[in-house]
Amino acid sequence: MDAAIVTVGDELLTGDTENTNATWLCARLDDRGVDVERVTTVPDRVADIARVVNEYHAEYDAVLVTGGLGPTHDDVTMEGVAAAFGREVELDDAAAEWLQEEGYASEDLVTGTAELPAGARPLHNTEGVAPGAVVESCYVFPGVPAEMQAMFASVADEFDGEQTYIERVEAAEPESALLDRLAEVQDRFGVTVGSYPGETVTLKVTATDPEAAREAAAWLTDHVQQVDESAE
Amino acid sequence: MDAAIVTVGDELLTGDTENTNATWLCARLDDRGVDVERVTTVPDRVADIARVVNEYHAEYDAVLVTGGLGPTHDDVTMEGVAAAFGREVELDDAAAEWLQEEGYASEDLVTGTAELPAGARPLHNTEGVAPGAVVESCYVFPGVPAEMQAMFASVADEFDGEQTYIERVEAAEPESALLDRLAEVQDRFGVTVGSYPGETVTLKVTATDPEAAREAAAWLTDHVQQVDESAE
Repeated sequence: MDAAIVTVGDELLTGDTENTNATWLCARLDDRGVDVERVTTVPDRVADIARVVNEYHAEYDAVLVTGGLGPTHDDVTMEGVAAAFGREVELDDAAAEWLQEEGYASEDLVTGTAELPAGARPLHNTEGVAPGAVVESCYVFPGVPAEMQAMFASVADEFDGEQTYIERVEAAEPESALLDRLAEVQDRFGVTVGSYPGETVTLKVTATDPEAAREAAAWLTDHVQQVDESAE
Repeated sequence: MDAAIVTVGDELLTGDTENTNATWLCARLDDRGVDVERVTTVPDRVADIARVVNEYHAEYDAVLVTGGLGPTHDDVTMEGVAAAFGREVELDDAAAEWLQEEGYASEDLVTGTAELPAGARPLHNTEGVAPGAVVESCYVFPGVPAEMQAMFASVADEFDGEQTYIERVEAAEPESALLDRLAEVQDRFGVTVGSYPGETVTLKVTATDPEAAREAAAWLTDHVQQVDESAE
């Protein structure tokens, strides 16, 4: 299973807000074996949201959208997602009921917030107000991190990729010195190895077979300089 | 002037690394009055990089690409950017010289790192090793934040948008209660106002005329409940 994430918000594109939602969703999807192929931030504009969601829906198994739900003038994500699927937005009865239970009395606010793409499955926001929605394989979540995380958890079982197994080895050598051994371990065990330089170089072994991941990590441990050795 | 940012790296798509480069570049471009229209993360794959860079080059005034430079097997950004422009990569003499000055002796490493899209303008990496490049209006920077930041600074003058002026007002009212006044201040002063809820609601006024920004902020200060008042 593969997926794309679309984060909506001018505040992300001006650098006013760090896009922690994207990183959080990427990690959860990776845990479930789902390959994230794109993460894209778009402005609070209906046409931009619609274009990108439409393209990704055609290409990937699932699209996850966050941000831009609610009653303010720049909350246009539901309109954008509706347009991506050639639908209108309409008042969702379940969503309107949730809002009234939360004490939202104003007709205007309830209507603005409870309008979802026609035929969407509404998602309850247990940590806040604005409801989410599922349209075919497109999931729309709020932008507030706690709300998004709780709503993702309520549908997490619907994201089911090939389970992968991960092992990590720390190397006390420059990344450039490791190239031949990284190529060799990938060939030898049929695994994928990423190298992430920091104070040491983290080698991340990923495999669909847990035994292959463990054997590749053991081979790397024998063949690269260990962090402990170099600390002496 | 508008722009798109493309960040390259599997480690971003698995949530192993927070995409701080994108946020940093967005803020610098916003400071210079450049509208960032897209921020997209793509995997370390030539075809994906090429497709996205090609699309954004056709649509936006500038494309900024970060990550995936260097000698390891998954550093394929230069090939991807070259393919986006229908070019080959070729050894750049200036880039090779910089690497040799850094003490890179191995022929293989120099070649792998100093190959840039044919006809590109090389960019010196003053904080690290892998050179960057400019191809038409596409800027390619390293992924290591300190290296990317220094390299962006060396070409920052080439990003020149319409100067905008920003004022911020903190409101001690729920965002939903502010809707009418946000609409009114935008109409009245011809400014854009974003609202960012947190402990208080930050209202960010943006205008091309500094006087309009100040007047709108003063109007908001008079018409919304202030944080100090509510603290009493």
